[in-house]
Amino acid sequence: MYRSHTCGELRASHINTEITLSGWVQKSRDKGFIVWVDLRDRYGITQLVFDEERTPKDMMEKAQKLGREFVIQVTGTVIERASKNMNLQTGDIEILVSKLDILNESLLPPFTIEDKTDGGEDIRMKYRYLDIRRNPVKNNLIFRHKVTQEVRNYLSKEGFIEVETPYLIKSTPEGARDFVVPSRMNEGQFYALPQSPQTFKQLLMVGGMDKYFQIAKCFRDEDLRADRQPEFTQIDCEMAFVEQEDILNAFEGLTRHLLKEVNGVEISEFPRMLYDDAMRLYGNDKPDIRFGMKFGELNDVAQHKDFGVFNDAELVIGFAVPGGNAYTRKEIDQLIDWVKRPQVGALGMIYSRCNDDGTYKSSVDKFYDQDDLAKWAEKTGAKAGDLVCVLSGPTNKVRAQLSALRMELAERLGLRKPDEFAPLWVMDFPLLEWDEETERFHAMHHPFTSPKPGQLELLKTNPAEVKANAYDLVLNGNEIGGGSIRIHDKNTQALMFDYLGFTEEEAKAQFGFLMDAFQYGAPPHGGLAFGLDRLVAILHGKETIRDFIAFPKNNSGRDVMIDAPAPLDDKQLQELSLKLNLKS
Amino acid sequence: MYRSHTCGELRASHINTEITLSGWVQKSRDKGFIVWVDLRDRYGITQLVFDEERTPKDMMEKAQKLGREFVIQVTGTVIERASKNMNLQTGDIEILVSKLDILNESLLPPFTIEDKTDGGEDIRMKYRYLDIRRNPVKNNLIFRHKVTQEVRNYLSKEGFIEVETPYLIKSTPEGARDFVVPSRMNEGQFYALPQSPQTFKQLLMVGGMDKYFQIAKCFRDEDLRADRQPEFTQIDCEMAFVEQEDILNAFEGLTRHLLKEVNGVEISEFPRMLYDDAMRLYGNDKPDIRFGMKFGELNDVAQHKDFGVFNDAELVIGFAVPGGNAYTRKEIDQLIDWVKRPQVGALGMIYSRCNDDGTYKSSVDKFYDQDDLAKWAEKTGAKAGDLVCVLSGPTNKVRAQLSALRMELAERLGLRKPDEFAPLWVMDFPLLEWDEETERFHAMHHPFTSPKPGQLELLKTNPAEVKANAYDLVLNGNEIGGGSIRIHDKNTQALMFDYLGFTEEEAKAQFGFLMDAFQYGAPPHGGLAFGLDRLVAILHGKETIRDFIAFPKNNSGRDVMIDAPAPLDDKQLQELSLKLNLKS
Repeated sequence: MYRSHTCGELRASHINTEITLSGWVQKSRDKGFIVWVDLRDRYGITQLVFDEERTPKDMMEKAQKLGREFVIQVTGTVIERASKNMNLQTGDIEILVSKLDILNESLLPPFTIEDKTDGGEDIRMKYRYLDIRRNPVKNNLIFRHKVTQEVRNYLSKEGFIEVETPYLIKSTPEGARDFVVPSRMNEGQFYALPQSPQTFKQLLMVGGMDKYFQIAKCFRDEDLRADRQPEFTQIDCEMAFVEQEDILNAFEGLTRHLLKEVNGVEISEFPRMLYDDAMRLYGNDKPDIRFGMKFGELNDVAQHKDFGVFNDAELVIGFAVPGGNAYTRKEIDQLIDWVKRPQVGALGMIYSRCNDDGTYKSSVDKFYDQDDLAKWAEKTGAKAGDLVCVLSGPTNKVRAQLSALRMELAERLGLRKPDEFAPLWVMDFPLLEWDEETERFHAMHHPFTSPKPGQLELLKTNPAEVKANAYDLVLNGNEIGGGSIRIHDKNTQALMFDYLGFTEEEAKAQFGFLMDAFQYGAPPHGGLAFGLDRLVAILHGKETIRDFIAFPKNNSGRDVMIDAPAPLDDKQLQELSLKLNLKS
Repeated sequence: MYRSHTCGELRASHINTEITLSGWVQKSRDKGFIVWVDLRDRYGITQLVFDEERTPKDMMEKAQKLGREFVIQVTGTVIERASKNMNLQTGDIEILVSKLDILNESLLPPFTIEDKTDGGEDIRMKYRYLDIRRNPVKNNLIFRHKVTQEVRNYLSKEGFIEVETPYLIKSTPEGARDFVVPSRMNEGQFYALPQSPQTFKQLLMVGGMDKYFQIAKCFRDEDLRADRQPEFTQIDCEMAFVEQEDILNAFEGLTRHLLKEVNGVEISEFPRMLYDDAMRLYGNDKPDIRFGMKFGELNDVAQHKDFGVFNDAELVIGFAVPGGNAYTRKEIDQLIDWVKRPQVGALGMIYSRCNDDGTYKSSVDKFYDQDDLAKWAEKTGAKAGDLVCVLSGPTNKVRAQLSALRMELAERLGLRKPDEFAPLWVMDFPLLEWDEETERFHAMHHPFTSPKPGQLELLKTNPAEVKANAYDLVLNGNEIGGGSIRIHDKNTQALMFDYLGFTEEEAKAQFGFLMDAFQYGAPPHGGLAFGLDRLVAILHGKETIRDFIAFPKNNSGRDVMIDAPAPLDDKQLQELSLKLNLKS
């Protein structure tokens, strides 16, 4: 038996008990006549003590030679600690060691195994197994486990069945971003790794499994970015015989459950907002509604004066910064520089100070009088002491720019509180979006999303106006889930593929099995998928997705990391060439 | 709202309630003046009734045209059923329909959606989404969900953390059977899909995550067989600071929990058996101990007579068939034919009848007298009325043959009862096994398995004798899990690789990252992996693994199945060739 207790467990009530602990040497302090060792395991830290008076000489010497991260086993007696450590749960006691075994030695670790480490990200990624020993990383992984376990508990209790769908699936001709997997069994043939279980879950609905979920890995062969992994985890859900309302209720329930069980937060309101309103009021389809600063559209009151910049703009739009009148001229200039950065891309920013005496002072006083500026304040809800920030330009661009400014200022003002949670449904997304590159409309969500009732006909005449039965779940300004009511009859699905520019052959080759299935009594159905990686990060606070993945993909240290792709040897390449029916 | 209740929910207490149901038309009986429709959903079947008297004419006509597997929604009143159906939970009531909507039509399904279907396996695999509508398949998937949920509940309660390990990992030079995945990001480089999370879980142990589990997909690029899928699911577990005893206790607990929660069975005994004893007594490393029929070795009492077949054999071995003396000569001849089938491969079988009067009658009476045969009976535990079956030959072969016969007879005698559960630990497996093909020793489990204390030295002198700290969990004659205490220091691991014939370079290339990790304070650790697919099948009874997989790989219907590999189109192949750095 390696241990009778863990290193997080012993308290004053254990004093005089003989115990055995195992763990890692966190640190040791050697005063010559006395040696203290902090012993660490997953559960905490316990102080060990060796001293000249009570410890045999050979053990004393052994203790003095213990290096950081040595793995040891000790037996000893729990004794009261002379100077208590209030920061440690085991701080009332220490262990007078009677037996010391070194289970494994350790090289000096390349960075300190402390909450605040001296290691940079690259070295910590290279030695991820050492990074995991640190509390922040370890606790993140445990937190992720807790979230997934609560997801499963809740959905199981609600009658959802977790069904595993395959990872080796049929590669479809248009799946350009699929990872493909050559099959040894069938020369020249390939599996693909799924980008999501979408079509499988729809087949399960056709199969009558009317409440399905799965926590599944998904794969996209795209470039690595800071917060995008080629493999990621999805909480994938689907229901049959449901309307949008049923789905929103089901996953509102899940979200409330998670916030309660994981964060101890009870959500009182779970508002819904139309996509169009989200764009108009926040310039963003995933608004953070923990704070106001809603947009006011100023075309009516700012155009047709002599200010050409506004007159020429498609949209003039602003919002009020609470207390922003306190900003100095220099601070406002810095804000203007901030919106002009290439990442934001505004050409400039107009502002109007709302003075405490009810007057206004704007950067465009020569074009706008006090009455005009009063209307700006009214439209943006600005009060005395606020600052109205105004941008102008093409609608989509200027909304995105002002949204970036809103989020930046909220961050600076401390309005994005990590312990406050404001979920929101954003609904009625457009069915299609224009793709500049291919110069055609693409499905905004995916081609299985159903249009709003009665809007199918609009597809031909005014495709940009067609709204979908699609919804996103937003939490604190982050999209954590998205879904839709699906098309469930073959004819509508065929029509959709047609509108999206698929030939009949292409549609059949890519999705024929689904359309075939629709012929055998497909029920109405819809669903939702949560990005687990992001959900966990958002629930936890502010860390990046990678902090919650045990072995994330990383650009650095590729040659040593076990998660990196590697060249094949000659034999493997030869075998693979055969599989591919290629000649090398 | 598509339904107020499910089709499995309504009882006599609901009579006179107005309800709405949705589901599939299981069948309809049209008597002209009255139409009964069985409406089915995931939860059950409810009878709908339409009749001339109470149903409007147009609805009556609509009802008469409903085809099998049409998806409909009905509103109506729960009424008492004239002739109750005791076989149906909803058999006391029926629905007098006031509103009928056809949600989707259906082609005639290619096989009947009944518990006993008329569809063969190929057609059911091709239309798997229809097969899933059938109770046996649907219930299997729900059963699998229940098992996995109970696994997670139990392990979470016991402090295990589920950690996701990557699916896109580094391909290792000797990973001949890996699926490889070309990486778009890195031309000429490849990921591999993991055959198991083995090395990752060991890194997690080095990382201090001392109780880990994961229900993970594993991949092997091998030929498809009836009960082997190229992707399969594993319950993967690992613990640090544990001895073998701790691991056996932990997973004995899990097994007891599953049998109790899933099967309602309390296990009283959880015996352990040495591998050597299992082979000696049952000829098999996964004995079914729900029944006896243990082997007796007869060399002492059957050799050195005049029977050359036995004299020349390495092993003479037999067991007693309870009541087997009742077999006719013809039946025994059929048994002899059975063991001579190529799948078993025995050259013949000797038998001795144990008569009720205490005498014996054997097929080799001219070589053995009553005293000899009495010793056979004694060694095999045969009683009056039994039949002693004896085989001879090379030890390993003859044990396997006799084991096959034992299992066959137990099956015929009804001793393999599906509702009786007998778990068993088989322990102290050999560390190595001889591979005829490569003419060298291979790790029986994997190269991370630790030898029994003090046996490392034997590796050089007598490798076949070295036992490992390895154990299998056996349930009813099936291996459902296996694991070992791992090597946790770099030197022993290097020694193992050396003994297994790896050069230092090969070991470094393939497992360098693990051996590097071992330098930084690796704790003693060990673990276990359950094959979930098989575990679920065994707990459920007798079905094959494929019956518990939603979308299993199947040899038939490849061209239409979505789980099949497919050829890439020219563009994809071109892109892939670039990735591979190959010229086509």
